[in-house]
Amino acid sequence: MRHICDPNETCPVMKAVEVVGDWWSFLIVRDAFLGRKRFGEFQTSLGVAKNILTDRLRKLVDAGVFEQVPAADGSSYKEYALTKRGRELLPVLVALGDWGAADGGAMPVVDRKTGKPVRLEFCTADGRKVKVEDVQMVTE
Amino acid sequence: MRHICDPNETCPVMKAVEVVGDWWSFLIVRDAFLGRKRFGEFQTSLGVAKNILTDRLRKLVDAGVFEQVPAADGSSYKEYALTKRGRELLPVLVALGDWGAADGGAMPVVDRKTGKPVRLEFCTADGRKVKVEDVQMVTE
Repeated sequence: MRHICDPNETCPVMKAVEVVGDWWSFLIVRDAFLGRKRFGEFQTSLGVAKNILTDRLRKLVDAGVFEQVPAADGSSYKEYALTKRGRELLPVLVALGDWGAADGGAMPVVDRKTGKPVRLEFCTADGRKVKVEDVQMVTE
Repeated sequence: MRHICDPNETCPVMKAVEVVGDWWSFLIVRDAFLGRKRFGEFQTSLGVAKNILTDRLRKLVDAGVFEQVPAADGSSYKEYALTKRGRELLPVLVALGDWGAADGGAMPVVDRKTGKPVRLEFCTADGRKVKVEDVQMVTE
């Protein structure tokens, strides 16, 4: 992927966008969070051309988002499993989905230990929630 | 932008990605949060070709992320201002930046009323923080 900025540029948004700043990559990762693991599953779900899917999966493996593992059912298929780094993309997906939900609804995510719904929110260190309109990005 | 899914598909991640699922769009929005407003400022900051920047800004205006407003200094320039809808993209940018920060650092965002740092976190309705690894996406 082309680098557009000074090599000394360390903007973390840019670093992330270099890995997942692609329409297909987001949707592949979303599918993985929904339990899809195999090339054919991604292809059927997304209707994406094989060559594009091959390319994006390779890049996501190279970036450490997925790892290839033997199929859980013992067949000869390879499966794509989210790594720890890949699973850490969940806030990005949830933030996107919350924004994309036309009706102000939130993405359906739960605490897997309790089954209770959770939401992605801005909080201070002492646990106070801060509304999006009161949050400001600052340059370091 | 091409629609890849069933027209009845309502995945909000896909809806969001249709608007901002493009490398340049994210970086333009990031620049806007950092205070950039004019075509020339985006162009200098991003090193992006004029035709691409024109196209992306038009799409972001069409999507209601930016609105064109008269220049604050009274000159004849037009400026691109984030709308309310556009400012609501901050969690997406912060989630991306937190993920992209190689050292586990967080994006520098503060509560504008108090100046205190804030972080984007998963919380239950009763205010308990839930770790990313304990959060699960569910299908509705």
